[in-house]
Amino acid sequence: MPERIEADYWIETAWPPAEAAEAMAGEQSSGTFVAIPGETPELRARAAARVERCEELAPAATPSLPYAGVPKGAGSPVYRRARVTLSWPLGNLGPSLPNLMATVAGNLFELKQFSGLRLDDIRLPEAFRDAYPGPGFGVAGTRRLAGVERLPLVGTIVKPSVGLSPEETAALVTSLAEAGIDFIKDDELQADGPACPFAARAEAVMRAIQRHADRTGKKVMYAFNLTGEIDEMRRRHDLVTGLGGTCVMVSLNSIGLAGLTALRRSAALPVHAHRNGWGMYSRSPAIGMSYVAYQKVWRLAGADHMHVNGLRSKFCEPDESVIASARACLTPMFDGPGRGCEAMPVFSSGQWAGLAHDTFRALGSADLIHACGGGILAHPGGAAGGVASIRQSWEAALAGVPLDEAAGLHQELRDAIARFGG
Amino acid sequence: MPERIEADYWIETAWPPAEAAEAMAGEQSSGTFVAIPGETPELRARAAARVERCEELAPAATPSLPYAGVPKGAGSPVYRRARVTLSWPLGNLGPSLPNLMATVAGNLFELKQFSGLRLDDIRLPEAFRDAYPGPGFGVAGTRRLAGVERLPLVGTIVKPSVGLSPEETAALVTSLAEAGIDFIKDDELQADGPACPFAARAEAVMRAIQRHADRTGKKVMYAFNLTGEIDEMRRRHDLVTGLGGTCVMVSLNSIGLAGLTALRRSAALPVHAHRNGWGMYSRSPAIGMSYVAYQKVWRLAGADHMHVNGLRSKFCEPDESVIASARACLTPMFDGPGRGCEAMPVFSSGQWAGLAHDTFRALGSADLIHACGGGILAHPGGAAGGVASIRQSWEAALAGVPLDEAAGLHQELRDAIARFGG
Repeated sequence: MPERIEADYWIETAWPPAEAAEAMAGEQSSGTFVAIPGETPELRARAAARVERCEELAPAATPSLPYAGVPKGAGSPVYRRARVTLSWPLGNLGPSLPNLMATVAGNLFELKQFSGLRLDDIRLPEAFRDAYPGPGFGVAGTRRLAGVERLPLVGTIVKPSVGLSPEETAALVTSLAEAGIDFIKDDELQADGPACPFAARAEAVMRAIQRHADRTGKKVMYAFNLTGEIDEMRRRHDLVTGLGGTCVMVSLNSIGLAGLTALRRSAALPVHAHRNGWGMYSRSPAIGMSYVAYQKVWRLAGADHMHVNGLRSKFCEPDESVIASARACLTPMFDGPGRGCEAMPVFSSGQWAGLAHDTFRALGSADLIHACGGGILAHPGGAAGGVASIRQSWEAALAGVPLDEAAGLHQELRDAIARFGG
Repeated sequence: MPERIEADYWIETAWPPAEAAEAMAGEQSSGTFVAIPGETPELRARAAARVERCEELAPAATPSLPYAGVPKGAGSPVYRRARVTLSWPLGNLGPSLPNLMATVAGNLFELKQFSGLRLDDIRLPEAFRDAYPGPGFGVAGTRRLAGVERLPLVGTIVKPSVGLSPEETAALVTSLAEAGIDFIKDDELQADGPACPFAARAEAVMRAIQRHADRTGKKVMYAFNLTGEIDEMRRRHDLVTGLGGTCVMVSLNSIGLAGLTALRRSAALPVHAHRNGWGMYSRSPAIGMSYVAYQKVWRLAGADHMHVNGLRSKFCEPDESVIASARACLTPMFDGPGRGCEAMPVFSSGQWAGLAHDTFRALGSADLIHACGGGILAHPGGAAGGVASIRQSWEAALAGVPLDEAAGLHQELRDAIARFGG
């Protein structure tokens, strides 16, 4: 583990990259754009950020983003690209996640030196692990609560996302439970609107889940979207706990780091973390941050399940990026047993049985939630056929049986391929 | 005021824009990428988002962002651009800012239909104003606490940003107070690091400020950066209040909406809101959101002072954008006295006396904090000369006296122009 905070960036600049990197380090610690009387050598030694690495890449002829500056006297500038690592003394900020963000992802994206700047990764001293709770349940705790040992949790999302009443939502939950589902989540658009109030929905849904559990012994995990103000979230969490629920959900970018941390510190249930809005941080290759950096911060703050899109989804993200994100969530952040802060990746959007093999092959793990919407509800055999088809393909993938061979053995999987495999 | 929530977007798509806008509306309300059995006409009537407007702009030959889709069978697609307005029934989410973000700025930035998508503005029903506190002090309250009636608050930032001890910070504050400053802020990199703990800094700084106030009757407003977890922020706020302080500061993107709301609901002091990290949301013209949309949400949650960069700053933002941001902060959000939620814009970065005239001419108001770093500390006459020069230029700007004419009357202003006007 590093003793200093480290952050990796991709930069594009009309200046020599090493010089631009020094400007970043200065702006994000003891320096600024003009010399300052108080910035003594002793002060720099204890507080300045350092450029640890600057590896130049192939340049670009035109700037990726507008309004960047060029050095005085530069005729027709070349936009040089580099991978840069900066480091900071922990003493500047202490192990504080909000202040970490101001340091590694603060006022540097707008600096005139850069026509592109992305945060690629961060590495944190152990003090952060000591200061933050991390996920309370992670993979093992989620599997235990959901009663699912080897396969991914087969999950789905309540659809239509909004517009159902609490009782209509509960009726859908009953039919999904009867179809054999492991996991259901609210849509991120459904929290506590007057048309479907949180408390009424939680009560109706938990009655349905409890009834099914009493009959079958299987308690479906339902992620209730309690996104809101701190006090609201705590109150809703306690309501869900009291009703026997096993999961709560938040929109990370809507509540922010202080929100998740406050919820987590008083939470008794896994936190299902939705990243809606993530496209803003990630879609331009020239600005923003990688999911590898992003998910570390939220895991440390307490996220148990992290959304990563899915293979061949309805979103723009390439499949390699989806897998890199999921692998990042499963990679320990710190050394030592119980200190990895692993979160369970959630694959969703356009998911169905036929994607199990490719997902397992690429990720090398079945420790995930596979959330299929249409892949379950639009299955020719109904929701039960959809759920069965997903379990059949995952069983086959784990056993090394090819998809088409498994399809020969299972009607539901054959139906899924006929319906969704086009 | 609209009865529905409205949001304006700029979009770029290889589909007919009206069709792409319908996809956005569907994804962000009751629809999804496949037909769903439960999405009845009645449900749509009560829950669906609507496309209110779709005004096509000139198209582009190449996509602004990678990985966007193209319609099946499209040969060489044109990327059509449009301004689009969507609306949502309030009943879907209620007046909840975190859930507003999930609705208007959630899972739509990644949709395959778009090679560019920016949120330009939002308009909210009155119910939001009833549900949220808005700024507790705003322009009038800040002026009252700082004892500044007509001119902008002349302000500065503690530099070096990090590395000073509490006592060194207090010594700098004493010299700035003696120079006649109205407002000082912590740098966003300085919160509660072990090298300069919050409590020790607040105590030392407030001793210096109180000593100066006892002697002169003028109490400098100091914005203490209390960015952190909710409980930490509340504790630090109460410490500052107990010490007689008059302002606290947060990094908005670090703490998030739930964090600011929780702080504001128990705060007795103005909240100085720093937007570091903002470049991530704004630097690509093809993705993210405008400051016009962004600042509305934070004002409603309780921000009293909002950073907007400054004219000719060290950042990439064009001057027109800076002025549009500042004007947005001063524009009432709702009708009726005391319901405008106006925040005081903070001009900073590369600021000095010579920018007063252009700032006043462009903004048409002196209701701002003019935070000058080098423009004060690097003035040939020292900090007192720097502060005086800024007041002289603002007095002249408000009186309609041109800068060069005012410089003929004031040594400090002449010195500032000689030093910084190059």
